[in-house]
Amino acid sequence: MNWSQHFADATANLRRNTVREFLKYAKRRGMISFGGGLPAPELFPIAEFEKASEAVLRCAGVKALQYGESEGVAELRQWVAADAGVAAENVLITSGAQQALDLLGRVLINKGDSVAVENPTYLALLSSWRVHGPNFAAVRSDADGLCVDGLRPGAKLLYLVPNFQNPQGTTLASERRAELATFAKQNEMIVVEDDPYGDLRYQGEALPSVFDIAGKADGPVARVGTFSKVLAPGLRVGWLIADRAVLEKVVQVKQSSDLHTSTFNQYLALELVTNHVLETQIPKLCSEYRRRRDVMLESLTETMPHLVRWTKPQGGMFLLVTLPRELKGAEIARAALAENILVVPGEDFHLIGGENTLRLNFSNCTSELIRTGIGRLARIVRAHLETANYPVSFSSV
Amino acid sequence: MNWSQHFADATANLRRNTVREFLKYAKRRGMISFGGGLPAPELFPIAEFEKASEAVLRCAGVKALQYGESEGVAELRQWVAADAGVAAENVLITSGAQQALDLLGRVLINKGDSVAVENPTYLALLSSWRVHGPNFAAVRSDADGLCVDGLRPGAKLLYLVPNFQNPQGTTLASERRAELATFAKQNEMIVVEDDPYGDLRYQGEALPSVFDIAGKADGPVARVGTFSKVLAPGLRVGWLIADRAVLEKVVQVKQSSDLHTSTFNQYLALELVTNHVLETQIPKLCSEYRRRRDVMLESLTETMPHLVRWTKPQGGMFLLVTLPRELKGAEIARAALAENILVVPGEDFHLIGGENTLRLNFSNCTSELIRTGIGRLARIVRAHLETANYPVSFSSV
Repeated sequence: MNWSQHFADATANLRRNTVREFLKYAKRRGMISFGGGLPAPELFPIAEFEKASEAVLRCAGVKALQYGESEGVAELRQWVAADAGVAAENVLITSGAQQALDLLGRVLINKGDSVAVENPTYLALLSSWRVHGPNFAAVRSDADGLCVDGLRPGAKLLYLVPNFQNPQGTTLASERRAELATFAKQNEMIVVEDDPYGDLRYQGEALPSVFDIAGKADGPVARVGTFSKVLAPGLRVGWLIADRAVLEKVVQVKQSSDLHTSTFNQYLALELVTNHVLETQIPKLCSEYRRRRDVMLESLTETMPHLVRWTKPQGGMFLLVTLPRELKGAEIARAALAENILVVPGEDFHLIGGENTLRLNFSNCTSELIRTGIGRLARIVRAHLETANYPVSFSSV
Repeated sequence: MNWSQHFADATANLRRNTVREFLKYAKRRGMISFGGGLPAPELFPIAEFEKASEAVLRCAGVKALQYGESEGVAELRQWVAADAGVAAENVLITSGAQQALDLLGRVLINKGDSVAVENPTYLALLSSWRVHGPNFAAVRSDADGLCVDGLRPGAKLLYLVPNFQNPQGTTLASERRAELATFAKQNEMIVVEDDPYGDLRYQGEALPSVFDIAGKADGPVARVGTFSKVLAPGLRVGWLIADRAVLEKVVQVKQSSDLHTSTFNQYLALELVTNHVLETQIPKLCSEYRRRRDVMLESLTETMPHLVRWTKPQGGMFLLVTLPRELKGAEIARAALAENILVVPGEDFHLIGGENTLRLNFSNCTSELIRTGIGRLARIVRAHLETANYPVSFSSV
């Protein structure tokens, strides 16, 4: 049976991304990984999870193991709603933030729709929405995030990670948030504001969300959140906050996608947040990730050749390294792999350019390994730079 | 902001199903529910879940709370593969069986494709696949399941629940399975064999799956399974077994849909099955559900008017009641609701006909409540029959 000839046309829009190929090596023995977007496993609140599991099964076992409503567990929707200052009717619990993004794409994107994204942006958003055949419009960004003046009227949708963006680690500046809210309202442009990292801020003041500025659930912004970065990604519990009309459509698609998000995991998350685990967990994560970010920034400064640049994130998990033009990120990443350093090329996160970039994650390794790893990476970059400037074919004449 | 005007065209294929409207009342105080497809909550192995959660968090907490591979936890894939007699490479772990069905639809269905389904069939399959705009071909069925001689060449895909089908409770007879396997191979027709209820057999011998008969992963059948009915639906852990080429595409779509199924829940399921919980749980479920089925069948025989008919399932959770033509299932269901009996009209499960049917679930209520509920339902049917035969407008002359 030749299944391939029966594939739906939309599958032609699927791309095997090179990042995924690299991440396969993450588990190799001795690997120092700056590759994935993994939280530090040693900081997982495992003891709290044990207590929470026991409490949920003892006190709500029958509800937690049964089918639930597609919208999510009512008490968890209420918690998210209260936290965001909206009504519970505006909240859908999803199987991670990724599902919220996927469902929004399915409900909002027609073939040929103009969809604006930061260049670069979150890779799995591009993969998820690309199947619908949109016209992606790449909007440039700088150290203050998306350049709002680069937006053109006519975009139906903008995807945005406002805080400590993946892959750059950059944050949308306060005045740009206000400009964006105004632009979106004036142009009836939907903004999907995805904020997985917002709680992981290591310096400076938290900024108001575009969702809040633009009028919460009455405005043009749909907001996506998750417990993955502050509790545990293995839970797969996230949420979508949106206008009732769009939420109703999204719920219908969610119901036929996976019926509902694991009730057990929703009760677990609820038990953890009502036991104030976030109040101790977030400061603990911030303190350790701040240290790791600092070590990575210092190591880069100390070891990287002059022409290499990198972003300086105020929070989150990533920074983006830009190599001199003559180097390719994919080549450096492959060479690094051979020396047990995992980094991913930044190219796939870009719609335009980015061939000479690398994304580095700093949350998953201890400070010591970060120092060792960046040192090794710098040597590889230096060696490639020398080869690039004195090509072998030339110098061996 | 008017979001509705921005919806994707495919959302026009979404239908609010009436079943969902009825199920909203399931939690009403005093309600006797034959409505949903819920397992008996009092039979959930809660103590085993407690032990398993503790063991997983103690022994594999770091892995269980971390991001995982889109294909699923390797050991769980191996367990499913061993159980099905295939290689682990042919197994994808999904967020419930529903996700496996949804992903297959996204990978296999183009607008206008001919998709054969039993009439009636699983409602949420119709909802999930309808968004792709297929031409559904309704194939008739009888007490021996799908009438294979009703299949026409030219169908790209057939969706099938071979055992104790939802909503009828019927099972595909042995010789028809062989005929179907032959037909599928000869006509290059893909069969999606969804078997959530197969383990819940209350009489007779288990029959070989169409997947096995047709050559396992080398044949034209993709097989879908789940822990929802035998462990707990709140876990949302199911699986897809298929040809490597289709599985690879499905994995790509899964990755952009929800990254992966909850690692914690996968480890929980693994811990439960390796501790042989299924070996005690399945016989326990079968024994109790058999009793409930018998009580429902007896009560129907004792109380229903002569012209009412119903299926006699050998397993599973449902039977389908066919009322005399002059009665409408939706009307009876509404009248029943007023007397605290929840049943769902069978019409939405049908592509053709079914207006005079009701789906009854027998797994969720105790025998005593089943007796009470069926008695009450029978009185309602009788009253409506009398009114139908002697219409008020006529008798009141």
